[in-house]
Amino acid sequence: MRFVTCLTPDGVEEPAVLSADGTAVTPLRWLGLPCDTLTEAIPQLTPAVRAGLALALSAIPSVPLDAVQLQSPIPCPAQDVVCLGINYMAHSDEAEKYSADAFSTKHQDAIYFSKRVSRAVPDGGFIEAHSDLVQKLDYECELAVVLGRDAKDVPAGQTKDYVFGYTILNDVSARDVQTAHKQWYFGKSLDGFTPIGPCIVTADEFDTYPPRLGIRSFVNGEKRQDSNTGLQIFDIDHVIHELSQGMTLKAGTIIATGTPAGVGMGMDPPQFLKPGDTVRCEIDGIGALTNTVR
Amino acid sequence: MRFVTCLTPDGVEEPAVLSADGTAVTPLRWLGLPCDTLTEAIPQLTPAVRAGLALALSAIPSVPLDAVQLQSPIPCPAQDVVCLGINYMAHSDEAEKYSADAFSTKHQDAIYFSKRVSRAVPDGGFIEAHSDLVQKLDYECELAVVLGRDAKDVPAGQTKDYVFGYTILNDVSARDVQTAHKQWYFGKSLDGFTPIGPCIVTADEFDTYPPRLGIRSFVNGEKRQDSNTGLQIFDIDHVIHELSQGMTLKAGTIIATGTPAGVGMGMDPPQFLKPGDTVRCEIDGIGALTNTVR
Repeated sequence: MRFVTCLTPDGVEEPAVLSADGTAVTPLRWLGLPCDTLTEAIPQLTPAVRAGLALALSAIPSVPLDAVQLQSPIPCPAQDVVCLGINYMAHSDEAEKYSADAFSTKHQDAIYFSKRVSRAVPDGGFIEAHSDLVQKLDYECELAVVLGRDAKDVPAGQTKDYVFGYTILNDVSARDVQTAHKQWYFGKSLDGFTPIGPCIVTADEFDTYPPRLGIRSFVNGEKRQDSNTGLQIFDIDHVIHELSQGMTLKAGTIIATGTPAGVGMGMDPPQFLKPGDTVRCEIDGIGALTNTVR
Repeated sequence: MRFVTCLTPDGVEEPAVLSADGTAVTPLRWLGLPCDTLTEAIPQLTPAVRAGLALALSAIPSVPLDAVQLQSPIPCPAQDVVCLGINYMAHSDEAEKYSADAFSTKHQDAIYFSKRVSRAVPDGGFIEAHSDLVQKLDYECELAVVLGRDAKDVPAGQTKDYVFGYTILNDVSARDVQTAHKQWYFGKSLDGFTPIGPCIVTADEFDTYPPRLGIRSFVNGEKRQDSNTGLQIFDIDHVIHELSQGMTLKAGTIIATGTPAGVGMGMDPPQFLKPGDTVRCEIDGIGALTNTVR
């Protein structure tokens, strides 16, 4: 099942189900789930409730997708997005080549940081260049996990049931700001730096856990990243287990699982984004997230 | 004016005004401001509204402090707490001595990271030791700034009006987790790692901006930190200006401004916290925040 958030013609943001063919949406409100946001709805959207929704969908009218405006499925995350750094080996190599000081790691422990997202950028929305502040603007196509229930002390191998679904996140990064301030937070958290979408696909749509999905990105049509989420150094099961040992990961928590090789700083010479560039992030089974820099 | 959040005998969390003598509270609801949380109230608590509240207070009954249970003034921050790292020179020295790899900096740029706080620990509440995960538990007494309105592109020298008030924050840190994972986020974000309180004192109570306040901490009565917030390397004006250049800092944002020298890792040999230890953080003009490790 796929979930989105859409802006209705009367200016109301509605969490909704995306139809199987992707051409129409049905607000959760119409399905008897009066939630203002998907974050609020997610803990209630258990497999049993979703089965009920699937049945109800056939009897409830839907709205053509072109009659609404898609927002990010989670426009305002309840807490900062948890991010993995340097979580694919080939990306580790390219990052270390760019700056050993900032990115060198022995991969003994996962690297976690966070990204403030006051307003996620939707598919088709703009990445803000912040040209007065940022000279080295870069993209990072990532698989993002959305948790469905509070996770606390979850043993390794038992994390699957905590995952609500998956979406695509572009972890836009100001390499100069990120490295100047030593900790990465500020260079990752600028306004307009977090496209998320276009939808959240529930975990039951994927055969394996963690899912092994083709992940690609394109800048102005040129393929830049082409990998598979199965190549992550620390997989989703490890991450949820490890973090939940000490932190309660609340339902609605978004974890961005790191980016594969092929970002701008990894090119020879490095190539950074500029206003007018279009970045397309694709993950098999989820879709594509396309954003233009302005 | 001082603001708190208290748990009433009937189990309701109420943002409230603390009386001038600190012995009683008046819920904002009784003063005609029906807010569920202080975060929700803060943007409305402009100087003019506070002047009105001050007048109304004399005519409205208050509740003795011992009839309620103080919570952290902001029990559930709306977004992760923004933190400054290595922001006092003497602390920089002690931290570099402990681990040059983790903490060395040339102080050209401020170090920003964040701390997830699903539930802030109140004055008198427990710091969680997480003994299964953490061997090197440390305290960091810090002045925390709470923003009163959304801050975006605020010029240096003009940030004062964006500050709602100040509180005390103990940035409890698992040094082993913090350094193992390279970025500090996880080792700072464990459950029970963020005492905040006891109250928020509005900015107008302080003569200078940024305020120069005595800041001290004690472990089991032994003085460990003793400094002044005027010694910060990057002051509050710089921080709000710099961050707001790229990030919209929303009303209610909490910024912890770094800790002075005297933390456990800086001692020779390092001395870390263990269950049963009591940490008292004091800042002049705000009060004291006392917590026991369990």
